[in-house]
Amino acid sequence: METTILTVNNVWMMICTALVFFMHLGFSFLEIGLTRRKNTVNILFKNFFVITIGLLLYAIGGFNLMYPGFEEGEGILKFAGFGISAPEGGMGFGYADGGYTWWTDFLFQGMFAATAATIVSGAVAGRIKLTSFMLFTIFYVGLVYPIVGAWKWGGGFLDQMGFYDFAGSTLVHSVGGWGALIGIYLLGARIGKFDENGNPRVIPGSNIPLAAAGVLILWLGWFGFNGGSVLSADPTLTSLTLVTTCLAAAAGGVASALFSYVMYKNYDLTMFMNGVLGGLVGITAGADQMSPTDAIIIGLIAGIIIVLGVAFIDKLKLDDPVGAVTVHLICGIWGTLAVGIFGEMAGIDQLIIQLKAILIVGLFCILCSFIIFYVIKVSIGLRVNKDHEIKGLDISEHDGMEAYAQ
Amino acid sequence: METTILTVNNVWMMICTALVFFMHLGFSFLEIGLTRRKNTVNILFKNFFVITIGLLLYAIGGFNLMYPGFEEGEGILKFAGFGISAPEGGMGFGYADGGYTWWTDFLFQGMFAATAATIVSGAVAGRIKLTSFMLFTIFYVGLVYPIVGAWKWGGGFLDQMGFYDFAGSTLVHSVGGWGALIGIYLLGARIGKFDENGNPRVIPGSNIPLAAAGVLILWLGWFGFNGGSVLSADPTLTSLTLVTTCLAAAAGGVASALFSYVMYKNYDLTMFMNGVLGGLVGITAGADQMSPTDAIIIGLIAGIIIVLGVAFIDKLKLDDPVGAVTVHLICGIWGTLAVGIFGEMAGIDQLIIQLKAILIVGLFCILCSFIIFYVIKVSIGLRVNKDHEIKGLDISEHDGMEAYAQ
Amino acid sequence: METTILTVNNVWMMICTALVFFMHLGFSFLEIGLTRRKNTVNILFKNFFVITIGLLLYAIGGFNLMYPGFEEGEGILKFAGFGISAPEGGMGFGYADGGYTWWTDFLFQGMFAATAATIVSGAVAGRIKLTSFMLFTIFYVGLVYPIVGAWKWGGGFLDQMGFYDFAGSTLVHSVGGWGALIGIYLLGARIGKFDENGNPRVIPGSNIPLAAAGVLILWLGWFGFNGGSVLSADPTLTSLTLVTTCLAAAAGGVASALFSYVMYKNYDLTMFMNGVLGGLVGITAGADQMSPTDAIIIGLIAGIIIVLGVAFIDKLKLDDPVGAVTVHLICGIWGTLAVGIFGEMAGIDQLIIQLKAILIVGLFCILCSFIIFYVIKVSIGLRVNKDHEIKGLDISEHDGMEAYAQ
Repeated sequence: METTILTVNNVWMMICTALVFFMHLGFSFLEIGLTRRKNTVNILFKNFFVITIGLLLYAIGGFNLMYPGFEEGEGILKFAGFGISAPEGGMGFGYADGGYTWWTDFLFQGMFAATAATIVSGAVAGRIKLTSFMLFTIFYVGLVYPIVGAWKWGGGFLDQMGFYDFAGSTLVHSVGGWGALIGIYLLGARIGKFDENGNPRVIPGSNIPLAAAGVLILWLGWFGFNGGSVLSADPTLTSLTLVTTCLAAAAGGVASALFSYVMYKNYDLTMFMNGVLGGLVGITAGADQMSPTDAIIIGLIAGIIIVLGVAFIDKLKLDDPVGAVTVHLICGIWGTLAVGIFGEMAGIDQLIIQLKAILIVGLFCILCSFIIFYVIKVSIGLRVNKDHEIKGLDISEHDGMEAYAQ
Repeated sequence: METTILTVNNVWMMICTALVFFMHLGFSFLEIGLTRRKNTVNILFKNFFVITIGLLLYAIGGFNLMYPGFEEGEGILKFAGFGISAPEGGMGFGYADGGYTWWTDFLFQGMFAATAATIVSGAVAGRIKLTSFMLFTIFYVGLVYPIVGAWKWGGGFLDQMGFYDFAGSTLVHSVGGWGALIGIYLLGARIGKFDENGNPRVIPGSNIPLAAAGVLILWLGWFGFNGGSVLSADPTLTSLTLVTTCLAAAAGGVASALFSYVMYKNYDLTMFMNGVLGGLVGITAGADQMSPTDAIIIGLIAGIIIVLGVAFIDKLKLDDPVGAVTVHLICGIWGTLAVGIFGEMAGIDQLIIQLKAILIVGLFCILCSFIIFYVIKVSIGLRVNKDHEIKGLDISEHDGMEAYAQ
Repeated sequence: METTILTVNNVWMMICTALVFFMHLGFSFLEIGLTRRKNTVNILFKNFFVITIGLLLYAIGGFNLMYPGFEEGEGILKFAGFGISAPEGGMGFGYADGGYTWWTDFLFQGMFAATAATIVSGAVAGRIKLTSFMLFTIFYVGLVYPIVGAWKWGGGFLDQMGFYDFAGSTLVHSVGGWGALIGIYLLGARIGKFDENGNPRVIPGSNIPLAAAGVLILWLGWFGFNGGSVLSADPTLTSLTLVTTCLAAAAGGVASALFSYVMYKNYDLTMFMNGVLGGLVGITAGADQMSPTDAIIIGLIAGIIIVLGVAFIDKLKLDDPVGAVTVHLICGIWGTLAVGIFGEMAGIDQLIIQLKAILIVGLFCILCSFIIFYVIKVSIGLRVNKDHEIKGLDISEHDGMEAYAQ
């Protein structure tokens, strides 16, 4: 390939990498915004841990685990030392298929890896022990995410059976979502979330402006998440992808806002925000395959799913403070199925393949996260004690550090 | 045109699109930061509505309304269905003149469209009914903005008479500013803004850090707003544009800070912030036509205009909580005139053309926004009742959702 | 050079410029987040002053002072008028060596210039007179920074003796750090920082979420700070630089978090955050010279330095509210030395050169900042009076403007 176009592709991929990195601020803001003030420092600590340890683990082993063929192929990526060896001669500077460097490839994929655990972080907020969460993160980001990723993006069996997941409705969002589901199931609800009759109570978020900022930052990050998943700067594919991404986000938000108004006679900002996220997760599996009209329909349905999903999770007596299961798991499933229903790949055969992959990934993630969480539960314990939970984790886990002191 | 340069242009335009999108976080932060806490959720809801419905309306019709010639030209953009039809064959992937895809063109312009209503949102904060604002937004973004845009950027009569407005001092900022002016005139001031003698009182902003962040985010977004208005990645034009944009912002801020210190013996951060924004709006019409020295002078004058303009609006007994009329309308007029005074196009003939266009756009926007607001006022009403206003719109319009709960 | 690759380089450099600009929001958030609420408006005012006056001063003279050879070479950059003359003919549009326009070069470097004073701003927060800080900024950004920069990046004697400082561990971060050190030495500690026995007390930060956001924004900005210092879009160098930058940040954060846990049995978020910044500063001098493994080791050591450095500064009875001296000066020195220890340039000769340059720059900055601060101290005074400090600078310096009103 000609040098200049390689340079352009690489520039685009680096920018997308930066945008996906920035999503970690979006997740942080969303999580602290939608939860109680007394757990703010704790949640931020978890977010810092996820992005930093996530990158390190991906360098040490995750990247090679996920893209196994590349070890021999180029000779530079070895599951030894820190995974990516030193730049000796020109070897470290080979180009990946899409026409950008291995370094860029590693960093872009590394930013994705950390996302999976971040999704779990929000769901388990306010009652999980910090050490327990950190242990879970190490195994989930270091092993589970790259193994599942290898099945499709690493050219594994899901790829060979024709499964399509453009930017990770299943491989990223559902993987995180399943972990979140098992986590909140094993942890139980926060004290006070359900009244004596089992009816859910609203535990208000402590900083709605930051939560809203988080959603807009995540939307911005999705320019890179989906746009970068083209793996080149191909003008038509990247720009179509951004159009479908933004229209699905817009449609998801409007649908959630209106549908929740119809249901509850209230202009609910949290629903609006989660609707935007639902639209984004929903379009992710097929963002390069859809027309703008398809994207709007996928987003509208995702928006309605958000409203119903949040009520459904409540019905199950599960406590998901930020709506992570609904946004990332249910809309992730919806988006993965949508590839078989809309766009250029639509067809019953494809739909069945998509369904199969959802089930396989789902079973694997349920199993893995159950084992990890369960072993932690019976060894060091999963949940802080009642007193600590009531006073807030910032006190018990962080020596009383206040999020908003005078 | 050669493929690689098309790819580069498209990458640049996509990045600028992302930056303009991000301005919606800037506007959100600025508005909630400079207004009272009790209306925070309401303002955020409005901002989410503007960006989401704005994009959808632009897809459904706005883009075709604004760029009418393109419907036939390329055959893909039809004022039917969702405006941009599905990608059939290669048709959807044609290139716009500047050398980037239609998809990119649509998305970049769509981000601009939503801006106009956002400007109004800040000015009418704290007393407008949510439903009324949403209705206004639909008409203003869906119809008024693209009609005015078509006159110049769509190749209409303002373009043919030689009017120059590089990135929208008039077409975006003044269009928003006129809507804001009519809105605050018809709504009246917030309770408590003027004392019994008609003297203005300061209603302090509730989150100055977020307001300041909003200004810096808007400045960042202006890299895309102006830089992308080159409509290609042409190195000299884009980089000159960024230099003039940043120098005008810097000069505007410093001028406002110093001039307000001279006037009021106070280092006023809000003036500093609005001075930066004034400089940005002021340079927007001619950012690609000015030398750095011109840019600094334009910014300095914009900064002084900000201080005088805010006092003038107060004098008129108009209540503009965020200074939107001064920043976007008055500095928008200033910037549009500056094209005839400074830079490569300076000249009395050009100045007269600029003035004419300001008047024409002004009359049209005043008329349209008056009609829209007036019809809303006499039908469903424009303003919340006194009790709701005092308690705050977060209670009356959003079921008591708190912005900053414990 | 071929036009297309020039365009690509220029696009990359403009994006990096935007990212470095955005670091000013990161610094603002970090500073207000880690200091007391009563000084918030004051700190934001200082940050706005630094970025605006910094750009203007760099246009008026700094750029030409720092890159003296360029004045004649191209004929467009003259130390007269506003430094960068108007675009006459094609002259203003020449290309700098790296293949991007002079405009881009000016703006990228201008964003760096403002950084030096911002580093000082955090350290002296809460007790410095606003006017005094503004005066210091004018001299430090307008003269000291470009003079030191000229020694290396302008091709001066440090460059000729073989000193290597890729993106400014010394030229930016240490320059700021020395100013911070002298500032806090001459100012003295905030009231209440040390008890009667001289033991340090924790003065808690007022907005940890914004501080955390500041760190993530700074990390994002470092994509541009280091990535842009390649001065072209060269795929291998830029992408390797981003990889080393991110791995050092991650390693720094993890090391600080764990080491401070070992030392103090507390999961300390502030240490985690400063560890990330320490890793970033540490890698900056050699980000294009290191393997990923080197980068991780450099980051780990930086993380440990942070924990020890903060304790050491306390021991010296110096009061540095945001840890600026530890992060920018000590880790800046570490990163500069690391070029002689790790990576492609490692060697005892290089190490000695690095050390020499550190000492020369250090002596010059100590001298300059001492003179500037001292002259201010004996003329208009450096520190606000006790009463103003206790009530907070937002009251005394900004007419009682509240950061977070109702």
